[in-house]
Amino acid sequence: MEGREGKDIEKSEGGSMALPVAVAVAVAGEEEGEGRRVMERNGSGFFYEEEDKEMGMREPLLRRRTMNTTSQLAIVGAKVCPIESLDYEIVENDLYKQDWRSRKKVQIFQYIVLKWTLALLIGLGTGLVAFFNNLAVENIAGFKLLLTNNLMLKDRYHEAFLTYAGCNLVLAAAAAALCAYVAPAAAGSGIPEVKAYLNGVDAHSILALSTLFVKIFGSIGGVAAGFVVGKEGPMVHTGACIANLLGQGGSRKYHLTWTWLRYFKNDRDRRDLITCGAAAGVAAAFRAPVGGVLFALEEAASWWRSALLWRTFFTTAVVAVTLRAFIEYCRSGKCGLFGEGGLIMFDLSSTVTSYSTPDLLAVIVLGVIGGIFGSLYNFLVDKVLRIYSIINEKGAPFKILLTVTISLLTSCCSYGLPWLAKCTPCPLNLQDQCPTIGRSGNFKNFQCPPGHYNDLASLFLNTNDDAIRNLFSSGTDNEFYISTLFVFFAAIYFLGIVTYGIAVPSGLFIPVILAGASYGRLVGTLLGPICDLDKGLFALLGAASFLGGTMRMTVSVCVILLELTNDLLMLPLVMLVLLISKTVADSFNKGVYDQIVTMKGLPYMEAHAEPYMRNLVASDVVSGPLITFSAVEKVGNIVHALRLTGHNGFPVVDEPPFADAPELCGLVLRSHLLVLLKGKRFTQDRVLTGPAEVFRRFGAFDFAKAGSGKGVKLEDLDINEEEMEMYVDIHPITNRSPYTVVETMSLAKAAVLFRELGLRHLCVVPKTPGRPPIVGILTRHDFMPEHVLGLFPQFKHHK
Amino acid sequence: MEGREGKDIEKSEGGSMALPVAVAVAVAGEEEGEGRRVMERNGSGFFYEEEDKEMGMREPLLRRRTMNTTSQLAIVGAKVCPIESLDYEIVENDLYKQDWRSRKKVQIFQYIVLKWTLALLIGLGTGLVAFFNNLAVENIAGFKLLLTNNLMLKDRYHEAFLTYAGCNLVLAAAAAALCAYVAPAAAGSGIPEVKAYLNGVDAHSILALSTLFVKIFGSIGGVAAGFVVGKEGPMVHTGACIANLLGQGGSRKYHLTWTWLRYFKNDRDRRDLITCGAAAGVAAAFRAPVGGVLFALEEAASWWRSALLWRTFFTTAVVAVTLRAFIEYCRSGKCGLFGEGGLIMFDLSSTVTSYSTPDLLAVIVLGVIGGIFGSLYNFLVDKVLRIYSIINEKGAPFKILLTVTISLLTSCCSYGLPWLAKCTPCPLNLQDQCPTIGRSGNFKNFQCPPGHYNDLASLFLNTNDDAIRNLFSSGTDNEFYISTLFVFFAAIYFLGIVTYGIAVPSGLFIPVILAGASYGRLVGTLLGPICDLDKGLFALLGAASFLGGTMRMTVSVCVILLELTNDLLMLPLVMLVLLISKTVADSFNKGVYDQIVTMKGLPYMEAHAEPYMRNLVASDVVSGPLITFSAVEKVGNIVHALRLTGHNGFPVVDEPPFADAPELCGLVLRSHLLVLLKGKRFTQDRVLTGPAEVFRRFGAFDFAKAGSGKGVKLEDLDINEEEMEMYVDIHPITNRSPYTVVETMSLAKAAVLFRELGLRHLCVVPKTPGRPPIVGILTRHDFMPEHVLGLFPQFKHHK
Repeated sequence: MEGREGKDIEKSEGGSMALPVAVAVAVAGEEEGEGRRVMERNGSGFFYEEEDKEMGMREPLLRRRTMNTTSQLAIVGAKVCPIESLDYEIVENDLYKQDWRSRKKVQIFQYIVLKWTLALLIGLGTGLVAFFNNLAVENIAGFKLLLTNNLMLKDRYHEAFLTYAGCNLVLAAAAAALCAYVAPAAAGSGIPEVKAYLNGVDAHSILALSTLFVKIFGSIGGVAAGFVVGKEGPMVHTGACIANLLGQGGSRKYHLTWTWLRYFKNDRDRRDLITCGAAAGVAAAFRAPVGGVLFALEEAASWWRSALLWRTFFTTAVVAVTLRAFIEYCRSGKCGLFGEGGLIMFDLSSTVTSYSTPDLLAVIVLGVIGGIFGSLYNFLVDKVLRIYSIINEKGAPFKILLTVTISLLTSCCSYGLPWLAKCTPCPLNLQDQCPTIGRSGNFKNFQCPPGHYNDLASLFLNTNDDAIRNLFSSGTDNEFYISTLFVFFAAIYFLGIVTYGIAVPSGLFIPVILAGASYGRLVGTLLGPICDLDKGLFALLGAASFLGGTMRMTVSVCVILLELTNDLLMLPLVMLVLLISKTVADSFNKGVYDQIVTMKGLPYMEAHAEPYMRNLVASDVVSGPLITFSAVEKVGNIVHALRLTGHNGFPVVDEPPFADAPELCGLVLRSHLLVLLKGKRFTQDRVLTGPAEVFRRFGAFDFAKAGSGKGVKLEDLDINEEEMEMYVDIHPITNRSPYTVVETMSLAKAAVLFRELGLRHLCVVPKTPGRPPIVGILTRHDFMPEHVLGLFPQFKHHK
Repeated sequence: MEGREGKDIEKSEGGSMALPVAVAVAVAGEEEGEGRRVMERNGSGFFYEEEDKEMGMREPLLRRRTMNTTSQLAIVGAKVCPIESLDYEIVENDLYKQDWRSRKKVQIFQYIVLKWTLALLIGLGTGLVAFFNNLAVENIAGFKLLLTNNLMLKDRYHEAFLTYAGCNLVLAAAAAALCAYVAPAAAGSGIPEVKAYLNGVDAHSILALSTLFVKIFGSIGGVAAGFVVGKEGPMVHTGACIANLLGQGGSRKYHLTWTWLRYFKNDRDRRDLITCGAAAGVAAAFRAPVGGVLFALEEAASWWRSALLWRTFFTTAVVAVTLRAFIEYCRSGKCGLFGEGGLIMFDLSSTVTSYSTPDLLAVIVLGVIGGIFGSLYNFLVDKVLRIYSIINEKGAPFKILLTVTISLLTSCCSYGLPWLAKCTPCPLNLQDQCPTIGRSGNFKNFQCPPGHYNDLASLFLNTNDDAIRNLFSSGTDNEFYISTLFVFFAAIYFLGIVTYGIAVPSGLFIPVILAGASYGRLVGTLLGPICDLDKGLFALLGAASFLGGTMRMTVSVCVILLELTNDLLMLPLVMLVLLISKTVADSFNKGVYDQIVTMKGLPYMEAHAEPYMRNLVASDVVSGPLITFSAVEKVGNIVHALRLTGHNGFPVVDEPPFADAPELCGLVLRSHLLVLLKGKRFTQDRVLTGPAEVFRRFGAFDFAKAGSGKGVKLEDLDINEEEMEMYVDIHPITNRSPYTVVETMSLAKAAVLFRELGLRHLCVVPKTPGRPPIVGILTRHDFMPEHVLGLFPQFKHHK
């Protein structure tokens, strides 16, 4: 019963701070015995592991990751840069008031220059990575397919299969090994984690350099290995990693960059950078600059400012220009097997000019069924992920084994199923080559005699991008048989579900688009007699319906599809399908990314308060005694409190020597306390030293938020017994304007306040005078449904 | 010195409530003497008129309108529907707690159905109006041009001019008369007002039925009269009006609709509807559904939720489908002179496939100069508006006179300037007719002999849409002379500036696009030797640079242009131009809509706090004594307070009989007090009656926000002397969870809280115990730079 024991300790030490998970991680890194235990209790375990057992609530499955979740977002006031944020928070600090204006102009200039430079660099970096990724995938996969094709042409079918499956296996195992041993955080799509980060939840090492490395090479391996996975989700994650690293690192070598980068050492600017990175990722993956901006807005970001719109737009424009330059360069054949294709991935020549009522009805039916399939996809992905997580938790070898198994399954499907299809004579009057000899193309020869092609092989034995291109192609109404489309749809739908969750960076976009396109083309072919829309258009609409049904994005998917296909005339139809499929799917379950966020146990703050919160008040969820510091506190007390609790923020109370009655002075952050203690400006007596003393010792940016793992840690402090008995004035580093709510404030309204302002701590003050000046502190975890419903189970039925 | 006197009275009565303008209007409508005076003091005059004189601050010019600004947005908690919002606010009300769950399901169902129905209706309505508008303009203008053309062909040039100018004059006078006499609020673009409304400032009758009527017909008149105005801005305003009227009115006749519409009787839902309306307006005006959504997001809305993205998207999809259906219908020639054109207004065939470095340089230069011209445009529009407002304030006849003068000027330019151009022989090998006989087309004959055309006349003697189409047309590099483009650019730039501000609904998009397109084509022609991009593309980029330079929108303009022209390949170039021109223009002045909002004196809340606010605390800007009610208050006191002050919210304080010490109970709204007083449930003694009593008297929706001008007014109360001495329990209607800040809270952080949560009142509570439980109330006006800098002039230099 370690969990229970932990809870008790936590409760007695300061449960009302509600155990910010962030802190638990910080502690865990340092202390083996105590710290480790605290971590396992607090780091999401507090809510999920223990209470689950007691009350049968939802279970987090990917526990390894959930333990390290950190609330890194703390916008205690909108910070422009740390020096201003300090000034901002310590309003009465005269030293800073005077200083601020003279410094401001040059700072603002540096800040603006750096802001745009970083946006430019993010765009360039993401564009470069996307290009490299494409190049590698196309060349590796192309080489593999060419090899297989050559053996097929010589009728050496067994050798061909062994070559094909062997290549896949090696690539898959390499990707899985990278993922399992180097950076487990790189597995999966990465979009849920980025989304959670932008909501304020920093999962462990999700944006680290090792994650970036594995994400890039693992994604290349995974896609080249012929898995039904995309490179789009990983690209978003890659963009976010690049943004994070540019914003905080690689800077120590060059003094200039280092000095300037301090302006970005705060949560808001980091968040903005990562939003830009996510937008750049989508822009690079789909070559869709506007789609990238909208994706960041609609799916990724939790807080949005209009300035951000412009900055993400700039970043994606840079991505578009970079990619365009590279593609121009490759057009002349300098990039090996890669070299075709322009900025628009699946160029559809406009085939729709008008449509009739039966067409519209067909499209509506397509949307409804697509929505059902989409939500079923989410449901099944969830189930499969839960099973996989049990396997994956057993250790790295099991992860690799699982990946290899799925790889073999995929190879068997891809190579085996085309034997079911019959050979079709090549159509006459065709500009294209038939059968296709090279890497891609509509007409794969496979086992067929010359002059014939196997339509199922054209879909299976191709890269995913080429398969989509084949499905979207217009004017090819009779190219694929109904049976072919049915087999392909079933196989891809099934493979897509079982593939997500293996230890390989794997995007969800491509599997969904692929399944949706084959579904759409299937429906189009079935409805051929009553509806004369182009089959390529049907494939596009099918893809839209699946995307709407799984991801539940509307505007961004619409724009991404528009930019992918360059066909503006079908916009109303795509909008219609998206709306229908999203509506249908929403009535069954949540979007796939939200589902994964929930399953990983990341404490995601929804934009709206839950209805039952209206019947509660703020003090209902605040629990336990509270650790407060007095304005001039004994060093020993602070060190003790920092060591024993995992709290990230402590209320500071002015007491009678310094005030007439106890009153709330403000909130002090653990990280600032650590910096202050490291400075060792202690006094023998309990006196106010004033801000001047503190700021003589510390530079402007000493209190800035350090990069992950770079800040002062508790064991860095070297405080002897004598110093423990001395005093330190924590006034100057106290945030004197914390946001507060009265204890009788409706919990729903407190949640709205907390969420809208992106807070990390919200002070609850008493309503009636004559009581201690602070009742408790609300953190993110106090608003989580698990916590609230745990305290008030009577609301559970009405959830 | 009425103003000064007014200020004193206000101060003594309760200046700290900062005189919400809304109230002033409510009062003004009812009381002639006192009320009128209060209004002139408070209704924006409090800040602008009086303090301007004393401190020389910026002057509001369109005073007539500014007086009636109303803060209508008050999201005191996220309301789903009024009954829930009451429940939400009165957390301790047990009656409602029990009731709420059973009612909830059916209510939520009705709410959702109604929400989507309204979105559908807004889309249909706006689409219909847009179509009607197009139809009318094209037919009226076409008839006028045909008439002129026929006379020209017979060489009767004087008669042609008289006909042309006469038609313009009549149409202009009609539009101006409508505007001047029926609905002055319909003049101008309407986008600034909609933007201000969505920020929480309700200018007088800006969304009324009369405004809608005048906006539609005035816009038709203005555009058909050949003014250099667009129908796009008015269309946005029209969409917003339709949304507002659908959300609140026309419902009394049908009982069903009436019952259900009560859910929309709150600020948040009205705001959402109007956002949808604005999006629908842009979507209808440019036939750009995605552009409409982005416009609403980027320019119009101040608060954004992801649910809104979906709803606006649905609305614009409906608009697109509606318009498409109508256009299909008209394609067969059933709509008179209107009938050409598909859903894409200016179809550019893709002409760019690659571009070189000189091309990019040319584009950058184009962007820089475009940005300068754009900001100059804003500057001049501002100056001209200031002059016009002096004329317009003199009365309706002056407005009409001004309009007629500008109409004559426009006619002279349009008819006179083409005489300067020389005749060009028609190009050979042309599919188009040349010279064009009909209404539109590239080749106007004008005074030229047969087989020749006058290129300047092709631009001037056309509707604005056709002129843009001519400028955007590709593959026509030699069609327009440099001199022609220069004359046209200069004339349109000048006419556009002098036309905005006349008493006619006038959009800014089309003048800006027109000037920008001619500027772009001019630059393209000048740079012809070094740069071989198509001239039509140059026109498009020029339009983008002007739009970026005046409106300062990026993503939405980009997408709108994309949807207008259906050319995805030029997306990187358009993005580049927009970014450059916006950056350049931003260094000179604000966007044109922000500028108009400022000039109209609308108290627009910016998303960020001003830097000097960091040096102030909340109590610094709270002023004067405060009117508070005790929980059970004498009716006479309430009536007296309501009569004497214009405040919209009053703090309620629980005093010793009902609490141990005075404590803040909550905030009560004027409108709720009026409803309560009208109910007349008074008691002889000072006792708590409890909520049950109140809710036995009142229905669920009696406290819902009434439509503008429909709520209970002070003079509706009929309270006799005896009742004045009785007591009423205002507990049940008190919002018990008002958002509060401590008096020492940084003003900047209070402003962020106020803005982000969309508040109308923010209670300031004391920091130290033993004082009255509330220090004051902050309203929108307390955060206005004018007010703060008026109190603390020392910050002015650093603004």
